[in-house]
Amino acid sequence: MKVSIYGAGRVGISVAFSLLHYGIVDELVIVDIDKNRAEGEALDLLHASAVFKYCNIYAGKPEDTKDSDFIIITAGRAQRPGETRLELLADNVRIIKGISENIVKYSKDSLVINITNPVDVLTYFIWKFSGLHSSKVFGTGTTLDTARLRALLAKHLDISPASIHAYVIGEHGDSEFIPLSNAMVGGVPLTDFCEKCEKKASDTIPCISFEKIANEVKTAAYKIIEKKGATNLAIGAVTAKLIDSIWKNERRVWTPSVYIEDVYIGYPAVLGRKGVEKVMHLKLEKDEKEKLEHSKAVIRRAIKEIEAAMLI
Amino acid sequence: MKVSIYGAGRVGISVAFSLLHYGIVDELVIVDIDKNRAEGEALDLLHASAVFKYCNIYAGKPEDTKDSDFIIITAGRAQRPGETRLELLADNVRIIKGISENIVKYSKDSLVINITNPVDVLTYFIWKFSGLHSSKVFGTGTTLDTARLRALLAKHLDISPASIHAYVIGEHGDSEFIPLSNAMVGGVPLTDFCEKCEKKASDTIPCISFEKIANEVKTAAYKIIEKKGATNLAIGAVTAKLIDSIWKNERRVWTPSVYIEDVYIGYPAVLGRKGVEKVMHLKLEKDEKEKLEHSKAVIRRAIKEIEAAMLI
Amino acid sequence: MKVSIYGAGRVGISVAFSLLHYGIVDELVIVDIDKNRAEGEALDLLHASAVFKYCNIYAGKPEDTKDSDFIIITAGRAQRPGETRLELLADNVRIIKGISENIVKYSKDSLVINITNPVDVLTYFIWKFSGLHSSKVFGTGTTLDTARLRALLAKHLDISPASIHAYVIGEHGDSEFIPLSNAMVGGVPLTDFCEKCEKKASDTIPCISFEKIANEVKTAAYKIIEKKGATNLAIGAVTAKLIDSIWKNERRVWTPSVYIEDVYIGYPAVLGRKGVEKVMHLKLEKDEKEKLEHSKAVIRRAIKEIEAAMLI
Amino acid sequence: MKVSIYGAGRVGISVAFSLLHYGIVDELVIVDIDKNRAEGEALDLLHASAVFKYCNIYAGKPEDTKDSDFIIITAGRAQRPGETRLELLADNVRIIKGISENIVKYSKDSLVINITNPVDVLTYFIWKFSGLHSSKVFGTGTTLDTARLRALLAKHLDISPASIHAYVIGEHGDSEFIPLSNAMVGGVPLTDFCEKCEKKASDTIPCISFEKIANEVKTAAYKIIEKKGATNLAIGAVTAKLIDSIWKNERRVWTPSVYIEDVYIGYPAVLGRKGVEKVMHLKLEKDEKEKLEHSKAVIRRAIKEIEAAMLI
Repeated sequence: MKVSIYGAGRVGISVAFSLLHYGIVDELVIVDIDKNRAEGEALDLLHASAVFKYCNIYAGKPEDTKDSDFIIITAGRAQRPGETRLELLADNVRIIKGISENIVKYSKDSLVINITNPVDVLTYFIWKFSGLHSSKVFGTGTTLDTARLRALLAKHLDISPASIHAYVIGEHGDSEFIPLSNAMVGGVPLTDFCEKCEKKASDTIPCISFEKIANEVKTAAYKIIEKKGATNLAIGAVTAKLIDSIWKNERRVWTPSVYIEDVYIGYPAVLGRKGVEKVMHLKLEKDEKEKLEHSKAVIRRAIKEIEAAMLI
Repeated sequence: MKVSIYGAGRVGISVAFSLLHYGIVDELVIVDIDKNRAEGEALDLLHASAVFKYCNIYAGKPEDTKDSDFIIITAGRAQRPGETRLELLADNVRIIKGISENIVKYSKDSLVINITNPVDVLTYFIWKFSGLHSSKVFGTGTTLDTARLRALLAKHLDISPASIHAYVIGEHGDSEFIPLSNAMVGGVPLTDFCEKCEKKASDTIPCISFEKIANEVKTAAYKIIEKKGATNLAIGAVTAKLIDSIWKNERRVWTPSVYIEDVYIGYPAVLGRKGVEKVMHLKLEKDEKEKLEHSKAVIRRAIKEIEAAMLI
Repeated sequence: MKVSIYGAGRVGISVAFSLLHYGIVDELVIVDIDKNRAEGEALDLLHASAVFKYCNIYAGKPEDTKDSDFIIITAGRAQRPGETRLELLADNVRIIKGISENIVKYSKDSLVINITNPVDVLTYFIWKFSGLHSSKVFGTGTTLDTARLRALLAKHLDISPASIHAYVIGEHGDSEFIPLSNAMVGGVPLTDFCEKCEKKASDTIPCISFEKIANEVKTAAYKIIEKKGATNLAIGAVTAKLIDSIWKNERRVWTPSVYIEDVYIGYPAVLGRKGVEKVMHLKLEKDEKEKLEHSKAVIRRAIKEIEAAMLI
Repeated sequence: MKVSIYGAGRVGISVAFSLLHYGIVDELVIVDIDKNRAEGEALDLLHASAVFKYCNIYAGKPEDTKDSDFIIITAGRAQRPGETRLELLADNVRIIKGISENIVKYSKDSLVINITNPVDVLTYFIWKFSGLHSSKVFGTGTTLDTARLRALLAKHLDISPASIHAYVIGEHGDSEFIPLSNAMVGGVPLTDFCEKCEKKASDTIPCISFEKIANEVKTAAYKIIEKKGATNLAIGAVTAKLIDSIWKNERRVWTPSVYIEDVYIGYPAVLGRKGVEKVMHLKLEKDEKEKLEHSKAVIRRAIKEIEAAMLI
């Protein structure tokens, strides 16, 4: 199995490193403008592979990505002093465009997973530029936020994340939210669970911790970036898990950024060997529906803005 | 880590075989009256362990189970021509009694998992005879039925069992049931999901397949026994998974047979290194509550019957 | 990934059960004349799969094996009272012939792994009847014997089987042997290792245990068959591990029964996605070479005998 | 199971990240003077743990390491302009001293694995300062170099690293070497193997690639540091694998830095739950013995130098 990763930054390398642990990859290509860095990381990863399964890892050019099973996109540059958010974004859209063209040229049958932020907006443009079917192109969306939610709930409830069935959906950004009406823990509605748990606020109102946890999830990235400059480990672990699950055709439900109506947005969907195999139909409460529509609107606006600025 | 298995029959050996795949056991003792058979199985398992992690596996006596971390009980004899169900049961209770005394004598700090049927009734007596805390003694309960349900739903819905959060609860027997009001698939209530799925019966009523699937789960054992004489693989896989999860202290929610009120019954509970760490509080509909009470009554009656017959 | 198993006996089912633990199979077909038994086992396995990864498992006909990635052959009937070994063998060759024709018809691109004994002789005929390239057809050979050797050495030396690099080669039968001159444990020649170990016989001669262990390996099957009627677990574990390793294209060295000169025989070879990718060139001592030639002669004679008896 | 890591730099965090994939750790403490960085990494790791098994990960003080099962040491500062190698080393010895005192104070029953370079010298001082038994204190030694060797040989030979039994031993530094006389690949002496392989230099002399590969192993770190500033992934993967293997009590042979005569040096040894359970007795050729003695002398000299400079 062949994976190509665009971007040898901390996120791309964390994906690669985590992925080695599954012993499923035969060939791993790392593409980065900084060839030196890509080569150093590739060599370090190659040595690591001896512990799991030998994997042919190297720094390559776009043409080396030929016939990849998965293309992972983590490219994009950081903000420069004095430039606007839109200037940066426009530049990253241009980078994404170049990559999309290479995908079509060399690996049009691969699955494309985008991680670069703003993930929903950029995944939309990758889909658009590549012309690939929307089932073949998706973003990490709110899969990381969902992992964060489950980790924090696991800590709060003393129960395995595997038994906590709660999702974060919407834009991977400030307008994301947790449809609590659908959140369950081991067969018990999450809201009801905490009523009964010893960590409750009172006997009559649900545990006050949820709002705190929901906030922690939303601000997690800011907090980590403030402390260590970037977030890379959890997103690496989540993306590698996604790839393994897809490769094994598990058909699990995740919250990738998938195409709904006219935008890409984080939403429960089944991922299997064919890509996005089914988008779920959540049964949302009225206020949750509004939050979802709001989130879509935020993404839609960003897309339009770029299209206008770049005359796409 | 040390595991002792009472019973070298097909179930006990399937548990042992599956368990080897996790590479976590250092010592595995198989206790059976048929010493020859136990020795043959132990030797075959010992050779298999080379593929995973070397494990010291041997046929032993009760005293060899000393300081086990887990005691797995699969003992019990089959029905003889002409004898009543109660005569058989009374005999198996006597076998269970002997084992319980050995547990107290040699491994009073171990976790005890009973698989022998009727699992709820016999787990109750192991708890009673051993005098161990109820958090240390539990049965496989409806964990197997839950696995069956998820396998069949996975097949019907084309979605990973890991994303299907539905449980079978109650007696591991005819009175068990699926609390559908709590069943979710990837964030969507199971009943609602099938309404939307392409495999639905009609647009207005829920997919008719559920009742069929629920029936298949309930009759699965009969069907397999009729065809191959016994069921052993799935129960082996489920029990080994339980042991691995407990050993890693995952604290997942399973449906073991746990002590509730005055009986042992299959019910969602968190299992961790300390055993049964939390029994969930399901929010059941009225008819589901009745089914649960009925199931408890069935188990309670069986316990009383034995107590009366055996003057316990 | 699709696997088809001919034979729903204890060996075939142990392979299937072990294989589920790797979570790599999408479709598993079990073909057996006893359809009832195959259906029972398939159902039990299907339920077990929920614990690992859902797998579509069913009892099928030869045409259901279409486009398998792996064909596993465990078919063959047991000896009847009064019949000669050759009569039995001739019958099993006929069964193997039918299967070979089905392989060519439905899955000519699959890898074929034969387990049925005498494994070297029957693998030869599967290769001959199917007309497939010898890299695509191989037997389990002495992989099981090698696992047994490593388990027993691990027990004797208190060292992981993974650090014991010793092989059993030759006929999977009485003429097999351990080329001790090539056996190493953690970088130390095995013979030298035991000289230094505390479990030695004396300070001047190598540990006397080797001969005992070599004998145990050779008689292991007899011993287990005597005690439990058949050996199935270790061969199941070894074969499933082979399949996983091949599927992941690990390219490990095993001792499958591979085509050398004019026979199939257990010998170190690299197995990868393309099948037998390289046969090693052992550097044997004079007496080891003689043993190998003797073992080849034993297999060659058996092949000729059948060819003569069956006018092949 | 509890692990404490001293040092939140790239190496320490790579160990932690890799370790999460095994799902065996319950509590993970990261100790670093830069509390902010440690907190950021801990939070990122905590989120990642949701994908594997929830793990209580946090930035802590030495007292939080209480009762750890493993203490991993990656502390040490980088060289400052103008200072000598010995000045830097003396400072790092002081850091190591403080950590050693904390180990004795809070976790005297833990296993201590040192990664900080010069690994052989510093492991010696940790052993000395802590007063722990030498079986409880060891360094990563040449485990990483051995992994590198196997990766490069795997690439050259097209064979799994798991079937390549070659070690790098001696000082983790310029005087390390490969005892080729003990190197085997799938039962064939490595030197002999390449004679027969298609990639040979000529028919009469052994493949010239070995010397090239041996050089690549020795210069790998320099090359990676030059390209990406540091090596962290492979050492993280190797160390995590070590911890998992020890925790599962596999008793594999590795090349950790272990106490031999009067120094710590990379040498084949069995690692199990009790730490260093057996040091192997390699049968070396004359020139290999000389290389080993030279390597010991290099380490011995460095130890003396520090003892003299610091008046230890």
